[in-house]
Amino acid sequence: MNTLAGGAEGTGVFAVVGGTLIDGNGGTPRPETVVLMENGRFSAVGRRGEVAIPPGATVIDASGQFVLPGLMNGNVHLLDAIMMMGKGGAEYLARFEGRLHEVIEEASQLSLRGGCTTVFDTWNALVPVLNARDRINAGQAQGARIFAAGNIVGMGGPFSADYSMQSRQVISKTFADRMDTLFDAGVGRILSTLPPEEVRPIIRDYIAQGLDMLKVAISDHLVVTLGWQSPYLCFSERVLRVIAEEVRRAGIPLVSHTLSVESLNIAVDLECDVMIHATITSLQPIPEDLLLRMAKGRGWSEIQPTTHGYQCHLDATNHPWAGYAGGAHEENTVRLIAAGAPIILGTDAGCTDPDILHDLPPEEIEDRPWTIGTDHLVWMRAMVEKGMTPMNAILSSTREVARAYGMVKDYGTVEAGKVADLIVVKRDPLADIARMSELAVVIKDGIPVDFEKLPTQRLVTKYPRGEDFERR
Amino acid sequence: MNTLAGGAEGTGVFAVVGGTLIDGNGGTPRPETVVLMENGRFSAVGRRGEVAIPPGATVIDASGQFVLPGLMNGNVHLLDAIMMMGKGGAEYLARFEGRLHEVIEEASQLSLRGGCTTVFDTWNALVPVLNARDRINAGQAQGARIFAAGNIVGMGGPFSADYSMQSRQVISKTFADRMDTLFDAGVGRILSTLPPEEVRPIIRDYIAQGLDMLKVAISDHLVVTLGWQSPYLCFSERVLRVIAEEVRRAGIPLVSHTLSVESLNIAVDLECDVMIHATITSLQPIPEDLLLRMAKGRGWSEIQPTTHGYQCHLDATNHPWAGYAGGAHEENTVRLIAAGAPIILGTDAGCTDPDILHDLPPEEIEDRPWTIGTDHLVWMRAMVEKGMTPMNAILSSTREVARAYGMVKDYGTVEAGKVADLIVVKRDPLADIARMSELAVVIKDGIPVDFEKLPTQRLVTKYPRGEDFERR
Amino acid sequence: MNTLAGGAEGTGVFAVVGGTLIDGNGGTPRPETVVLMENGRFSAVGRRGEVAIPPGATVIDASGQFVLPGLMNGNVHLLDAIMMMGKGGAEYLARFEGRLHEVIEEASQLSLRGGCTTVFDTWNALVPVLNARDRINAGQAQGARIFAAGNIVGMGGPFSADYSMQSRQVISKTFADRMDTLFDAGVGRILSTLPPEEVRPIIRDYIAQGLDMLKVAISDHLVVTLGWQSPYLCFSERVLRVIAEEVRRAGIPLVSHTLSVESLNIAVDLECDVMIHATITSLQPIPEDLLLRMAKGRGWSEIQPTTHGYQCHLDATNHPWAGYAGGAHEENTVRLIAAGAPIILGTDAGCTDPDILHDLPPEEIEDRPWTIGTDHLVWMRAMVEKGMTPMNAILSSTREVARAYGMVKDYGTVEAGKVADLIVVKRDPLADIARMSELAVVIKDGIPVDFEKLPTQRLVTKYPRGEDFERR
Amino acid sequence: MNTLAGGAEGTGVFAVVGGTLIDGNGGTPRPETVVLMENGRFSAVGRRGEVAIPPGATVIDASGQFVLPGLMNGNVHLLDAIMMMGKGGAEYLARFEGRLHEVIEEASQLSLRGGCTTVFDTWNALVPVLNARDRINAGQAQGARIFAAGNIVGMGGPFSADYSMQSRQVISKTFADRMDTLFDAGVGRILSTLPPEEVRPIIRDYIAQGLDMLKVAISDHLVVTLGWQSPYLCFSERVLRVIAEEVRRAGIPLVSHTLSVESLNIAVDLECDVMIHATITSLQPIPEDLLLRMAKGRGWSEIQPTTHGYQCHLDATNHPWAGYAGGAHEENTVRLIAAGAPIILGTDAGCTDPDILHDLPPEEIEDRPWTIGTDHLVWMRAMVEKGMTPMNAILSSTREVARAYGMVKDYGTVEAGKVADLIVVKRDPLADIARMSELAVVIKDGIPVDFEKLPTQRLVTKYPRGEDFERR
Repeated sequence: MNTLAGGAEGTGVFAVVGGTLIDGNGGTPRPETVVLMENGRFSAVGRRGEVAIPPGATVIDASGQFVLPGLMNGNVHLLDAIMMMGKGGAEYLARFEGRLHEVIEEASQLSLRGGCTTVFDTWNALVPVLNARDRINAGQAQGARIFAAGNIVGMGGPFSADYSMQSRQVISKTFADRMDTLFDAGVGRILSTLPPEEVRPIIRDYIAQGLDMLKVAISDHLVVTLGWQSPYLCFSERVLRVIAEEVRRAGIPLVSHTLSVESLNIAVDLECDVMIHATITSLQPIPEDLLLRMAKGRGWSEIQPTTHGYQCHLDATNHPWAGYAGGAHEENTVRLIAAGAPIILGTDAGCTDPDILHDLPPEEIEDRPWTIGTDHLVWMRAMVEKGMTPMNAILSSTREVARAYGMVKDYGTVEAGKVADLIVVKRDPLADIARMSELAVVIKDGIPVDFEKLPTQRLVTKYPRGEDFERR
Repeated sequence: MNTLAGGAEGTGVFAVVGGTLIDGNGGTPRPETVVLMENGRFSAVGRRGEVAIPPGATVIDASGQFVLPGLMNGNVHLLDAIMMMGKGGAEYLARFEGRLHEVIEEASQLSLRGGCTTVFDTWNALVPVLNARDRINAGQAQGARIFAAGNIVGMGGPFSADYSMQSRQVISKTFADRMDTLFDAGVGRILSTLPPEEVRPIIRDYIAQGLDMLKVAISDHLVVTLGWQSPYLCFSERVLRVIAEEVRRAGIPLVSHTLSVESLNIAVDLECDVMIHATITSLQPIPEDLLLRMAKGRGWSEIQPTTHGYQCHLDATNHPWAGYAGGAHEENTVRLIAAGAPIILGTDAGCTDPDILHDLPPEEIEDRPWTIGTDHLVWMRAMVEKGMTPMNAILSSTREVARAYGMVKDYGTVEAGKVADLIVVKRDPLADIARMSELAVVIKDGIPVDFEKLPTQRLVTKYPRGEDFERR
Repeated sequence: MNTLAGGAEGTGVFAVVGGTLIDGNGGTPRPETVVLMENGRFSAVGRRGEVAIPPGATVIDASGQFVLPGLMNGNVHLLDAIMMMGKGGAEYLARFEGRLHEVIEEASQLSLRGGCTTVFDTWNALVPVLNARDRINAGQAQGARIFAAGNIVGMGGPFSADYSMQSRQVISKTFADRMDTLFDAGVGRILSTLPPEEVRPIIRDYIAQGLDMLKVAISDHLVVTLGWQSPYLCFSERVLRVIAEEVRRAGIPLVSHTLSVESLNIAVDLECDVMIHATITSLQPIPEDLLLRMAKGRGWSEIQPTTHGYQCHLDATNHPWAGYAGGAHEENTVRLIAAGAPIILGTDAGCTDPDILHDLPPEEIEDRPWTIGTDHLVWMRAMVEKGMTPMNAILSSTREVARAYGMVKDYGTVEAGKVADLIVVKRDPLADIARMSELAVVIKDGIPVDFEKLPTQRLVTKYPRGEDFERR
Repeated sequence: MNTLAGGAEGTGVFAVVGGTLIDGNGGTPRPETVVLMENGRFSAVGRRGEVAIPPGATVIDASGQFVLPGLMNGNVHLLDAIMMMGKGGAEYLARFEGRLHEVIEEASQLSLRGGCTTVFDTWNALVPVLNARDRINAGQAQGARIFAAGNIVGMGGPFSADYSMQSRQVISKTFADRMDTLFDAGVGRILSTLPPEEVRPIIRDYIAQGLDMLKVAISDHLVVTLGWQSPYLCFSERVLRVIAEEVRRAGIPLVSHTLSVESLNIAVDLECDVMIHATITSLQPIPEDLLLRMAKGRGWSEIQPTTHGYQCHLDATNHPWAGYAGGAHEENTVRLIAAGAPIILGTDAGCTDPDILHDLPPEEIEDRPWTIGTDHLVWMRAMVEKGMTPMNAILSSTREVARAYGMVKDYGTVEAGKVADLIVVKRDPLADIARMSELAVVIKDGIPVDFEKLPTQRLVTKYPRGEDFERR
C-alpha cells in the first residue's frame, strides 16, 4: 500500500467503500457508504450506489467496518515533556541533540500509526518542531500533521526551575544553558518580570516565527515537586491582556496552561480557545460558577484522565503523579462531562525514551496516558469510564478539536471538501470504545498510510540500546 | 544604669542635657538642648535654660554629644530569613523549636544594643513573633519594640519551595511540615490558587490575629536558586485588590514583597505603604516612568544596599548573593536616591546562627548587611556611598519609617508628646555617618537601656557551642 | 516501689519468691524458687523452703510467674544510628547537641523498661556515652547498665560519607564538622590511610579513654546508598593485626563490623569476640566453610533478624532497608541457627526521634527492629520464627551475651554471687516467646525498678512536639 | 605527507636526516644523525655519512632539529575519567553511547597529534577500548597505539559511588545500569566482597578478554567528594595476592590505584610494576622508609603534577581538585624526584567534552593537566618545575614507560630493531622543556603522520555544538 508518494497507480483517487460512516457530526452512523478522495480532499461522501466511483480509483473495501474522521489529538508534546519534569530529560536531550526534529517526526509517526492524522503540539523546542512540521507538510517526512505552539510563553527550558533544575547538578552549564535557550525561545521566565509595553513586541516577534497557536503559562509548573499544590501565576492580567491582543491580531488560537482554580478563572476571562488540563486545579474542586462558565463559554477544555486501573496503581504506590488525574481532578472531569462542557482530547503524550519506560513496573506501562501512539486510545476509554458517551468521545477526538483550534472548515469530519483524513476500524466503536484500537485503514491527505510499518525511522524507539554496542 | 524596671530613683523622670539635637525633622541641629522624659514620653524639648528640669529627675549629661531619635528599622526578620534560603535553616529551627520567641527577643535585644528602639518584622513565625512583641511591650522581656507582619501572604514555610525545599531530603517530613505550618500561618502558597471570594475571609481572619501590618507576596522568591532572574507572580490583580481592601478596612499598613519590575509596578498601583527591597528587580533597571511614580507616590521604598567593599567581595567570588544589591540593583538605588524618592531603612537582618557565620570568610562578615545589630549601621554607610546625605540617611532611619508605617504621631522624632526613644552618639554623625556606631546612650520608652549588656539572654549567641559539651 | 535510691525499708535485701526459675544456664526450669539479693548481688538461689529469707527482707511474690536473668542486648546504638544513615540525623543532633548524654540515658531507660538490664553500645559519640555510662553506674541517673565502644574504629562521623554526607548540603559546615569530630573521636576514616606504626599509638590512646570494648570497621558502611552491595574494606590485615594486638593487650573484647563475606572471613581470622550483624553479607550466602568456622569458632555472631510480617512489608514496598535482613541474609540466619553457632541478641536499636517514627506508615512501626525498648522482644520472636528454640533465644539474650563480652563471671545468669539483675515475666516464655513482653518485675543491681514509669526524663520522647509551642 | 596508508612512493623506507638525536637512553645527544626506518622498525641509526640511505627512501630533513623517541603516556583514560567524577559524565555517555570506540580513537588521535605515539589506558570501558586498540593496530583507524587495562579491578562504573552516584537522581536506572555494566566489566565493586577462591576465576576470565595490563584498586576513589581524605581499601591482602598471582601467570604488568599511604605501602609490597598517581596520598607525606622502598624498588611511580600557575589558581579558588597535586602531594613529588625514584609520565587525561571545557574559566583551561594532547607537555614542564632535569623528563616519557610496562625490547628508544616511533622537535628541548610542543615531525610505525590534520574524525571535538542545529 502506498505511503508517502501518493496514489500509486496513477489517478491518485481513492474510494473507501461499504463501511458504516461515523462522520464526526454526531448523527446516526450511515451504513454502506462510499467516501471518495481526490487531490487530498474528500470529493464525495454518500450512500453506496449514489456516489459514482471514477475509473482508475483505488477501491478500499470497508464492508462491515466503520469509517471515522482521522483522529486529532489536541495536546501532545512530541518531545516527551513528562520526562523533562522527572528523570530522563538530561540523557534524552544529550542523546538526540541536533536530531530533535527527527525525534519529533518519529513521535508523530507513532501517533499516526495509532490513527491520529493531526496532532497539536502545545510545548516543544520551537525550531525543531517547526522544521518537523514543515518537512511533513512538504512530504519530506512522514507523520501526523503537526500544528505547533513552541514554548509555553513565560516558562523556562528543561533545565530551569520549571522542569528539572536538579539536572544541572550533574550536567555542564554550557549544555544546560544551550538547551534552555533552545526551548524557551526568547519567551521564557524573564517575560514574567517585564511591564506590558516590553512584553508586546517580544510576543509579536515570537508569533511571527510561524506558530500555529500560542500557549501562555497562566500559572506555573511546580506541581510534581510540590505535591500538586499551589502554583503561582506567571503574568499580571494586564500583561495577559497584551499577550491575548497580539494573539487575536495574528488570528491564531490562544491556548492556556493553568494548574489552579484562580489561573483557570483567568483563562476563562481571557476567552482562551483551548484550556489545557483544565481539570488540574491543585486538587481543589472547580467552583460551581466557574464550571458553568466553562460549560457555556467559548473555549474548549482539554482534559487528561487516567483509567481507573491506572489510577489505582498510582494511588496504591503513593506515586508522585497520583494527583495528576485523581481525587478532585477526577471529580472535575466527571462534573465537566456531566455539564456538557466542550471537551477535547489531549494527553501531554510524547515519544518517551525506552530506557525510561524500561524503568517502570508493568502497572505503569499499561494504560500509561503519556505514551504517544496509544495515548488517545487510553483517553477515550478513560473518558467513557468517567461518563462520556462513546459518540462524544469520538467527537471530542475529531470535530471538536478542529473547532477548538478554528480549523473545522478543513478538518474534523468526513465531508466533501475537507481534507481527506480518515480511519477505518474493524468493529463498531460505539458499542465498545476500546475497539478504536482495531485499525484497518489510516488515510491522511487522501492517501492510505502503511501505518503498521511506522515509525519508518527509529532513532528513539530502536531498542534494546545495548545491542547497538559493538561486540568483540 | 536602670534598664528594665524603669526610672530608678523614684520619679522616673530623665533629662538628657547639653547635647546637640538632631530631632528627626531634618532641620539644622540645635546645640545645648534639654530633652525631658516622663512616663515614657518626651515631656519637653528645648534649649538649655529654657526647659526646667524637675527636681528628682535623673540627668544624663550629653555635652559635646549628639542626640537623635531612637532608630527604626523598617524591615527585619528577627528569626534570620536569609539563612532559611540557604544553609542552616534546618539546624536552626531544630535547635530552637519551642523557644523561637526567645530567639526573637534575643534578636531584638541585639538590634536595641545597636540603637534601634523599634523594628518592623515583616516575615516571621506568626505566633512566636507576636508573643515576643507582647512580652516586650508588657515589660516581661527586654528588646527593641517589635511591629510584626507574620508570614508574607502567599508564601510557603521554610521547607517549601520558597525557602529550602532541599532540606526535606534530610529532615523528617513531620518536622518539616510542622515548621511550614507554623510559618505559613494559614496564608501560604495555597492562597495563590484560590478565587477572590475564598481569599477574602482567610485574610480577614489572618489580620484578626493581631498583625501590625500585612505583607503580601506580589512576586515569588526563587531568586537565589535561579540566579536572580525571573520570579513569577503570586496573585492575580483582582485577588490583590481583595487583600488590599481587607488591609485598608483593618487600618493597618500594606507592605509588598516584589522581585521584578512588573511586580513592583503592581505594588505601586496597589498603593502599598511600604515596598520592601524595591530595588531588587531581577537585575533589570526600573523603567523611568515607574521610578517617577515611586518618587512621587504615596508609598515608601525600602532599599537594601551593600557597601562597596562588600559588593566587591561578592562579585569577585561569584557569590550566589552577588545579584542582591549589585549591578542594576545598585543603579536602581542610586537613581531612587537621586530622584528624591521616599526611602526607608530596612535590611532583612536577623539573628544569624553563629555556626553559619563561622562558615564565612572574614570578607563576608565585615559589612554583612544581614547581621542584626550592625545591619542599620552598614545600611547608612552604604546609602551615603550611593549618594544619600547623612541627614537623609538619619531621616530614613527615623521619621520616614514612622511615616511609612503610619506611626509618626508617636514615633520617629524627638518632640514633646511622642514616645521617648532616643540615642546619643559621641561625635557628629552628619560629618561622618560611620559615627552612628559610637553610642553613648540608648533610651527606650523614656528609660535608659544598659545596652552594652545586651543581649541578656544568650540562647543563640552563646558561643562557641562546643563548650557546652560535657567534658570527661 | 523503690527505684533509684536502693532497698527502701532499710535492709536493702530483696527476695523473689515462688517463681519458676529459668536461670540462664539452659537447664530445666526450676519451680517454686527463692532468689535472694543483697548488696547488689545474688546471695542465694534455691528451692522455696531451702533458702532462708532474712528478716527485714522485702519479699516479692512471683508465684505462678517466671524468673529470668536480666536481659542483655549485645548491640545497640542508644543515639539512634539508623536515623543517621537516612533522614533525621541533622535535626536530631541539632536539637539535642549539648544534651546527648541525656538522650543516651533516656534510651537506656527505655531499654530497661523493656527488661534489658545491660546494653552494649557498639557505636555512639564517645564522650556522651561514657558520661552516661558513668552517671548510671554512679547512681546519678537511672537506666540500663551501659558498656560502650564509642566510634567504630575507621569510620567517619554522622555527616561523613559513612552516614549522611548529603546533610552537608543544608547544614552549616561548622556544625557538621563539630559533630563529625565528636563522633569520630580521633579514630575516623583517616586511620584507614595510615601505616601500622602510626595506627598503633592512636588505638592505644583511644582505648585509654575508658572503652569497655573496641569495635573495628572491617568493611565500610555504604550499604543502603548502594542497594546493599559491595562495601570496601577499611583496613589492611596488617593494620587490623596491630589493632587486635592493642585490644588484647588492654584486655577488652574485640568487636567487628562487617558487611561482606570477605570482611566476615577476616573477622573470623582475627578471632573477634563479637561479630556484629554477621549475617549481613551484601546479599551473598555465607560460604559453607566460613559458616562452619563461625559455628565452631571462638567468637559470637550477633544477628539482626526481622519478623516475617515486617520483612514482607519491606519487600512489598521495595523499601531501601529490604535487604537488611531479607533474602540471603535471612538464609544466613537460618543456617547459623541450624548449625548451632554461638549467637547473641543485638539490634542496632536506639532512641529514634518521634518525628521520624511519625513519618512511617503503621506497617513500619509494628515490629520495627530498631526501636529501643521493644527491639529485643521483636528479636526473640523473629529468631524463633527462623528456627531458634525459645530457650536458646533466652540464652542468646542473657548468658551468651555475657560470655561473648567476657563478663560471665558477673552477669548473664541467676546464680549466687553474680550481679543481681533479673526479670519476672507473667507467663511461661518457653511456651510462647512473645510472652517475654509480659513483665511483672525488673530488678537491676539487686533493686527493683519502677520500670513502668520509665523514662523518667523525656527529652526525646515527649510528644507531640507541637504542644511545646507557646500558644497565644 | 602520507598518514594512514604507509610509505607513499613505493619503498616505504623513510630516513630522518641531519637531526640531533636524543635517543632515549640518556646519553649525550648525537648531532648530524641518520635514522632509517623500514617495515615499521628502525633499521639503522647512526652518524650522517656512516649510515647508507637506500635508494627510493623518502628523506626527511631534520637539520638543526632534534630527534626523540615517540612519546609514551603511561596513564590516560581516553574516555575522560575526570569528568565522570564530577559534572558531565551523564551527558557525555548519553551522547556517545554506541560510539564510544570512536571517542576513544578520537582521543588517541589528539594524543598522537601532540607527539605521543603510544598511550597506556588504565581505565576505560573494556569492549570499546579493546576495539579501538585493535582497529588502530589493524590500520582501520588512526591514532596513538593503545595498550589497555579496561576497568580498575574492584571499582564500580560511572554511575556507582566510585564516580557519580548523584547522576542517578536525574537519569534512568536502565541507562545508568547499562553503563555501569559496560564499564565495570564484571570486575566491579562486588569483587571486594568475595573470598579469594571466588575472585581467582573471575580475574582469570577477565584477563583472558585480552587486556594488556591489569589495574587493581588497592584503595577506593571517593577523594574529591570527601575533600581528599581517607579512602578505604578495596581488597584484603590475601585477595590481592590471588589477583597478583593471576596477573603474573598471564605475563602482563600489574598496575595499582592507590590514594593513601597504606594502600601505597601495599602496592609496593605487591611489587606492582606501575603505581598510578603514587604521590596522591590523602594529603599525607609519604613516610621516609616507604619513599626509599619506592626509590629502590622494582616498580615505577606514575606521578601527576600541576604547574605552579595552575596550582595557584586551584588553591586561590578553593577548587575541589586543589588537593590533587598540591600540598603534601607536591612535596611527595619533589621528594621522589630528589630521591631518584623510577618515574613515568601519566596524566589521567582524556577527551574532555567541549561543553565541560566551556564551563571553565580561562585559568582552568591553560595548563589543565587532564586535556589529552597537551597533557604530556604540561607534565614535562611541571616536573621540571619540581626539580626533574629535562633529560629525565624525556626519559620518563619514553624509555621508562616502556620499561615499566615490560615493553622496552620494542619501544621507548631510537635504536635499530625497535618499533620506529619518533618525533622531531624544532629546537633543543634540553635547553627548555617547553619546546617539546614545537613538533616538526611525528612518525609512528615507521610512517610519518600528518599530525596537524588530527583528529580525522570529530565526533566529540566538533564545536560549537549549537551549530549542528538545523536552522529555519
